[in-house]
Amino acid sequence: MEKIGRTKIVDLLKRTDIGAMVNVKGWVRTRRGSKQVNFIALNDGSTINNLQVVVDLANFDEEMLKQITTGACISVNGEMVESVGSGQKVEVQAREIEVLGTCDNTYPLQKKGHSMEFLREIAHLRPRTNTFGAVFRIRHNMAIAIHKFFHEKGFFYFHTPIITASDCEGAGQMFQVTTMNLYDLKKNEEGSIIYDDDFFGKQASLTVSGQLEGELAATALGSIYTFGPTFRAENSNTPRHLAEFWMIEPEVAFNDITDNMDLAEEFIKYCVKWALDNCADDVKFLNDMFDKGLIERLQGVLKDDFVRLPYTDGIKILEDAVAKGHKFEFPVYWGVDLASEHERYLVEDHFKRPVILTDYPKEIKAFYMKQNEDGKTVRAMDVLFPKIGEIIGGSERESDYNKLMTRIEELHIPMKDMWWYLDTRKFGTCPHSGFGLGFERLLLFVTGMSNIRDVIPFPRTPRNADF
Amino acid sequence: MEKIGRTKIVDLLKRTDIGAMVNVKGWVRTRRGSKQVNFIALNDGSTINNLQVVVDLANFDEEMLKQITTGACISVNGEMVESVGSGQKVEVQAREIEVLGTCDNTYPLQKKGHSMEFLREIAHLRPRTNTFGAVFRIRHNMAIAIHKFFHEKGFFYFHTPIITASDCEGAGQMFQVTTMNLYDLKKNEEGSIIYDDDFFGKQASLTVSGQLEGELAATALGSIYTFGPTFRAENSNTPRHLAEFWMIEPEVAFNDITDNMDLAEEFIKYCVKWALDNCADDVKFLNDMFDKGLIERLQGVLKDDFVRLPYTDGIKILEDAVAKGHKFEFPVYWGVDLASEHERYLVEDHFKRPVILTDYPKEIKAFYMKQNEDGKTVRAMDVLFPKIGEIIGGSERESDYNKLMTRIEELHIPMKDMWWYLDTRKFGTCPHSGFGLGFERLLLFVTGMSNIRDVIPFPRTPRNADF
Repeated sequence: MEKIGRTKIVDLLKRTDIGAMVNVKGWVRTRRGSKQVNFIALNDGSTINNLQVVVDLANFDEEMLKQITTGACISVNGEMVESVGSGQKVEVQAREIEVLGTCDNTYPLQKKGHSMEFLREIAHLRPRTNTFGAVFRIRHNMAIAIHKFFHEKGFFYFHTPIITASDCEGAGQMFQVTTMNLYDLKKNEEGSIIYDDDFFGKQASLTVSGQLEGELAATALGSIYTFGPTFRAENSNTPRHLAEFWMIEPEVAFNDITDNMDLAEEFIKYCVKWALDNCADDVKFLNDMFDKGLIERLQGVLKDDFVRLPYTDGIKILEDAVAKGHKFEFPVYWGVDLASEHERYLVEDHFKRPVILTDYPKEIKAFYMKQNEDGKTVRAMDVLFPKIGEIIGGSERESDYNKLMTRIEELHIPMKDMWWYLDTRKFGTCPHSGFGLGFERLLLFVTGMSNIRDVIPFPRTPRNADF
Repeated sequence: MEKIGRTKIVDLLKRTDIGAMVNVKGWVRTRRGSKQVNFIALNDGSTINNLQVVVDLANFDEEMLKQITTGACISVNGEMVESVGSGQKVEVQAREIEVLGTCDNTYPLQKKGHSMEFLREIAHLRPRTNTFGAVFRIRHNMAIAIHKFFHEKGFFYFHTPIITASDCEGAGQMFQVTTMNLYDLKKNEEGSIIYDDDFFGKQASLTVSGQLEGELAATALGSIYTFGPTFRAENSNTPRHLAEFWMIEPEVAFNDITDNMDLAEEFIKYCVKWALDNCADDVKFLNDMFDKGLIERLQGVLKDDFVRLPYTDGIKILEDAVAKGHKFEFPVYWGVDLASEHERYLVEDHFKRPVILTDYPKEIKAFYMKQNEDGKTVRAMDVLFPKIGEIIGGSERESDYNKLMTRIEELHIPMKDMWWYLDTRKFGTCPHSGFGLGFERLLLFVTGMSNIRDVIPFPRTPRNADF
């Protein structure tokens, strides 16, 4: 076969130099036609759009043609011609075809219309479908948008550790990491396991958040963000929970809670706009196939300023709704940790746009949040989104050493694990703020997918670590 | 204090609007001067360069001034004036100063000239030093360069799983991940631990490489790259080993080994050029303070094409060197896994530029590499760099199902773990290639640091998982 440099299909479909000889390589999605002419829909993963390859059967070997089945990988040399029937402007009239890899009828993606559950079982092949091709191209684009946004603002990407020996944020839900021989665990006289021989010389776990280390970086480099995997060993088998997921956690020295809200709103609007501008074909596909309201919802988020509202006022609105006959599954009262239904009521029914709720009761928020003068609330901020509920959670941090210490003691957090964190408040403390965005939460919003297992390539959930 | 919007020092030092009123916030590096005038070197992490703040002592409260010690955090309103003595074009004449956070003399970074060993013990504070500020700003920039390079080439960033139940690549060196109660391990009649109650219902570990899953993605989306943490539970206490490190692994459908070499060379030159172009101040600082040959070595890599040489020819050169009297610590013969001293001899002494060594003996390379016609070698390629040795390792992959199966059986790799990987060769297989770059190896090269623990914020090594 003549050697011609390969053109990716995403690039080829934009070309206008009709008559050019080109080479394309990809996987056969479908093949149809008559006894004289066949049409191959070819996809190479670079775009959701297939290239139509026109094959004049008389010019090709019959045995070779038999191998061009769904899923087969082929290389085609041919001429770019104008297309009328393919849905694209150009197609390729095949001159030479080489079958690089055959695909027999045991291929699980023969027919269309598989259930999402079945596709999860073949997660190693599902990126070859239109739906997951679209989702993972959007996933890529969201990651790029995030790095671009922060880089252009002068933030530094900071890698916080994955394996940690601190367990301040909730030991019960952490995965233990060990190299000990579980058949020969050493114990001391009281029967406690001796971690001296474990790899790190002590008990170690997978991180649940990079925030505390992020604060170390922000109080040195000024503005930083993390973007890495985090872990929860929560035994929750729901469409919203993963045991392994990716988090983005910006942290900014000298930002107060208002700056933090400004940053969060600008940030998430940037990401959504990026998806609309740079993933138009993929978003349109998902809109048309799965979620007819997707594009409208994405555009809706960009239109207005987010509502900014204290928690206490939010509770009043919810209590009014109850008084007027609205039924919630869970009760509403000052002090309650809002359920998704409450958050969505505020966003979808009451305000009809995203809401940033602030100044939550300190009892339902983390120890490191800045305490307000009222003695009851902290400078927390949650960004609430349509369909998703909480998409971002953050706060201004308590920068006062004594107030932070008092809170740590009240909550009986083991001090020995916290000495390095406290040093930031001891040595040149400063006001600072940050927030966390669950990457897969953002992807649920941007793709319209309804199960979080369908926006990460290989989901880790209770009893599932396949591939 | 009057409210003026904060300017980052990196931006302020570029401004030319002398006379403007500005606000800067940051940490005091030094304070010196006379009884009338003091000079504060202020740093906010945005750049290695300090801003000089000039304080006319008569205008400020004495008690406040006492708090302006090394490490204290201050906010300054003042007038931008031309500078003669500060090493910068501008400085700030203070009008108002607020101490945001004091810093007493227990602050460990009081004086300059701490050893790298000591700074590792206070890794939570070391980003506040010139050296680590520079290293972590460069680390950020290298990550951005990597994403930019691949995004612009149409690659998709793909998140491969961190927790895995496959252990094909060397079970002995993996960290086990578990939620089992180690005080109450269930065992079956033969005495084997029953993993049924573990979180994933089977034994799970931390990934050592995302390559196999990356191949799944490349054979669907075309061109992908990973960038995530990987783990080795190797008990190696050396300046080159980490238990937790970040890897970049591109994988490209339809690329052969020549395309793979082209990609690797273009990629790493792009990163090195990015450092020279975008981190000039930080690189210069590290060059002047630690490694006088750094900038020259970075420029050297960009100058020429890399040498491309079969392993067999490389061995001949090394054997010739031995014959001529060159002493190596480790023996040289065809079939040996080259030591760093051998790699560096080829690069630094023989060719005096980077070398890509190809076609290694199959016995010293992984099972998935494409087998050459000679039956002895595989289409591996290692990129060898001055000072570092191997910086990139990659190969064209074996795309033939039968050849791959034969190799898997020869090596007794458990097939049950590999079914999903083999499906890529069963269903529309295609030629493809990829490589892995250890992010911290790249950083050692670009920063000139000599210990890998000094290019990652919180190193994980045997007996150390602090912070």
